[in-house]
Amino acid sequence: MTGRPQVGPLVFRALEGVPEVVPGADLAALLWGAAERSGIALANGALAICQKIVSKAEGRLVELRTLEPRDEARRIAEEDGKDPRHIEAILRETKRVVRRGKGVLICETAHGFVCANAGVDLSNAPGDDVAVLLPVDPDASAARIHAGLLARGAGPLGVIVTDTFGRPWREGLVDVALGCAGLQPLDDLRGSADLRGRTLQVTTIATGDALAAAAGLLMRKDAGIPAVWIEGLPLGSPAPARVLIRDPRIDLFR
Amino acid sequence: MTGRPQVGPLVFRALEGVPEVVPGADLAALLWGAAERSGIALANGALAICQKIVSKAEGRLVELRTLEPRDEARRIAEEDGKDPRHIEAILRETKRVVRRGKGVLICETAHGFVCANAGVDLSNAPGDDVAVLLPVDPDASAARIHAGLLARGAGPLGVIVTDTFGRPWREGLVDVALGCAGLQPLDDLRGSADLRGRTLQVTTIATGDALAAAAGLLMRKDAGIPAVWIEGLPLGSPAPARVLIRDPRIDLFR
Repeated sequence: MTGRPQVGPLVFRALEGVPEVVPGADLAALLWGAAERSGIALANGALAICQKIVSKAEGRLVELRTLEPRDEARRIAEEDGKDPRHIEAILRETKRVVRRGKGVLICETAHGFVCANAGVDLSNAPGDDVAVLLPVDPDASAARIHAGLLARGAGPLGVIVTDTFGRPWREGLVDVALGCAGLQPLDDLRGSADLRGRTLQVTTIATGDALAAAAGLLMRKDAGIPAVWIEGLPLGSPAPARVLIRDPRIDLFR
Repeated sequence: MTGRPQVGPLVFRALEGVPEVVPGADLAALLWGAAERSGIALANGALAICQKIVSKAEGRLVELRTLEPRDEARRIAEEDGKDPRHIEAILRETKRVVRRGKGVLICETAHGFVCANAGVDLSNAPGDDVAVLLPVDPDASAARIHAGLLARGAGPLGVIVTDTFGRPWREGLVDVALGCAGLQPLDDLRGSADLRGRTLQVTTIATGDALAAAAGLLMRKDAGIPAVWIEGLPLGSPAPARVLIRDPRIDLFR
């Protein structure tokens, strides 16, 4: 439950008509055009954007044939029946392998994300031998798109770059916020009191992740819906999504 | 991204006017009345309900003065500056302490949930010396409320009993689905193909948790909004929320 005043309904709308994204594409221009054609006014809301198209626009692609797998990559690939060049791409994005399961590596990335295969993805890549990597700095990606939309005439808005992550202990994936601009991703409730005036035990709500999770339900890689427009939540005090990454020094599970 | 066909927008609406809930309360009747007064037709959508009022209605309350803390509870309470009876209440709901941090126990409950303090909560309890416990069987709770709403004339709908959990590696809490009835909480994408016909690497989407997460943003303990009405997602093939609990035998983090 958020600390922000919330009155009306919270509405998630799939943004259709975004063209295929290629390296160097001006994402803000593509998203602005799709919103215009859909009759969506980009103001007083937040635009959730699938990481995949952000990475593609930024050229965060690697041709597997250019990679020389290290011994560790060859060993893992052999044990798991995978392409050693794919494992090499994963290890290059990995600061630390947190866990290894059957056919999956849970990795800590340079950003501090903990996710399967360090976010390196072969599906929907623009060719069979190309892997898509996470953006180098998803907050900077969000900030660039945010600035590009404002420059085109968007009103006050938030931008959330999302990706689909697994979780310990629970089945199924949910989308989380990798990068944010123009909105508050973490709501601090410390100090607010409950109905009886007792201080709440919970401290912070991951608003950015909660918005990403529901937006993810409307995104459809297989039908070309890489973005969702969200209305109804005040933007709060903008901060980057990196505030959602727990400091390893206080993380019980790092 | 879900495998279910999704056309229109996904809308979350706070359900206002739910009266204070006491043990033995007929929750379906209270929620039905609040929906009627709010002009919300409970059909073709899902009702997310805060675990706290479900537990209260079911009398899942324990008076701390009735508890005799075990030695372990006294030791933890002394080290953490807590009430030993609160720790005792937590340990009674705990199958296994997964991690212990400063002032917090991460516990596995009898249900298989892994969460702080085994879900035992002092805030918003109906008295200073009362702790609220999780429902014994949140899927059964959801099924009872679901049946009660249908009996009052509700159309096809889902019910999600939600609670606010922390996550490893990430800051902030998000709501998850503890109990479900009438809707599909986990979408299996195995076999679906991406834009290029390649089989998707992801297998399942935790739709129930994603809906709970966004619904949690509208719930307000401090303003008496314990339920949220969700429209726009097909109900799918109903299943209990326990399908969202990963089998400990294949859990890399259990």
